[in-house]
Amino acid sequence: MNVRALAFDVFGTVVDWRSSIIREGELLGAAQGLKVDWTAFADAWRAGYRPAMDRTAKGQWRNIDELHREILDGLLQRFNIAGLAEAEIDHLNRAWHRLMPWPDSVPGLNRLRSRYVLATLSNGNISLLVDMAKHAGLPWDCVLSGELIHKYKPDPEVYRMAARLLGVETGELMMVAAHPPDLRAASRAGLRTAYVSRPLEHGPGRATPPESGDNFDVLASDFIDLAAKLGA
Amino acid sequence: MNVRALAFDVFGTVVDWRSSIIREGELLGAAQGLKVDWTAFADAWRAGYRPAMDRTAKGQWRNIDELHREILDGLLQRFNIAGLAEAEIDHLNRAWHRLMPWPDSVPGLNRLRSRYVLATLSNGNISLLVDMAKHAGLPWDCVLSGELIHKYKPDPEVYRMAARLLGVETGELMMVAAHPPDLRAASRAGLRTAYVSRPLEHGPGRATPPESGDNFDVLASDFIDLAAKLGA
Repeated sequence: MNVRALAFDVFGTVVDWRSSIIREGELLGAAQGLKVDWTAFADAWRAGYRPAMDRTAKGQWRNIDELHREILDGLLQRFNIAGLAEAEIDHLNRAWHRLMPWPDSVPGLNRLRSRYVLATLSNGNISLLVDMAKHAGLPWDCVLSGELIHKYKPDPEVYRMAARLLGVETGELMMVAAHPPDLRAASRAGLRTAYVSRPLEHGPGRATPPESGDNFDVLASDFIDLAAKLGA
Repeated sequence: MNVRALAFDVFGTVVDWRSSIIREGELLGAAQGLKVDWTAFADAWRAGYRPAMDRTAKGQWRNIDELHREILDGLLQRFNIAGLAEAEIDHLNRAWHRLMPWPDSVPGLNRLRSRYVLATLSNGNISLLVDMAKHAGLPWDCVLSGELIHKYKPDPEVYRMAARLLGVETGELMMVAAHPPDLRAASRAGLRTAYVSRPLEHGPGRATPPESGDNFDVLASDFIDLAAKLGA
């Protein structure tokens, strides 16, 4: 392998969206005296994400902040959360800008950064990814997103765009993700692939490991293990 | 002012392209036994830059690596530099990926970064800017370039793109540059402006200060002064 740059999926792979959203909900609930099942709330918010992206593929492109807000407006009704001011709803929507990393993410990225160019390759919009990196101390060399070409992964153009902007061949770029479908699409676009296990992403007992037909270049248990396996 | 993010011109404003290119030439000359006026060579390389960008505006868009190489191929003939292998010419062309910062750039950016989102807004391509940041330790939150929309500053779309991707209003974004024409175009696009003096960019006695009609929001002598004036 002649890998020069790594492209990271972010939600679930680098940051623990579920615990982060649950905690943001609990903080809001404590401040406002709300009784809400924030675990169910977080799972429902995330469950709306893929269908919302799929809808935009057929119409006007919209970024993830807008899609998160559209889903959130429905959830506020469904979970009977009333009385929030617009600034409070906007702050809650931006909880996705404040997601916290898995414990190994920052130390692993800091090791990998000495040897490789590290970029995000996320469906999250650029400003969301920039805010998240500042909050969580994620040492990206470059923040890339499907937003730059108004397409969402797993569209093959998103993966090819990353290689082109980073000035490398697709075979010199490795996609890192906890999600086999993302890696399969990256592989079809010519990229190398690294699967990182994140067994708690959706809560205990809901892992989605690679299937027997998957043939990813690297399998890692976390980012420290990934750094070791990539010689960084 | 309600500035939330800073967009930096890079060549000349953040990095000292002239001293860096002269030094790269001298290193090559020492290694290869070449007798070349590297100061004249560096100035001629840079002088080809604006005309090359202007030519692409009328035809097929090409990135700065390609334009630098096109200019370089002409200079090798003009300065009678023969016998270089393709890998050596490519390495010389990538001297622009290895430009060194002004002495105040990194400490100033580190201060500014605690209070503002820091982005490049350069005509240099993304991979050039990423390589440069890794070499020079430039702590960007986000690397933005005219390459993302295949346009070059001072096209107003480049400045508006930066605000859109950073999720701020144009009036919440401040352009930082050592070049009045860049700042005038940014101001016309709705951005705030900070002029930073770099009197040695083109060598002693060749400064291009603001004119009497210019009305930039901040005037700073370097990035430390800029940080102080922006409360960072």
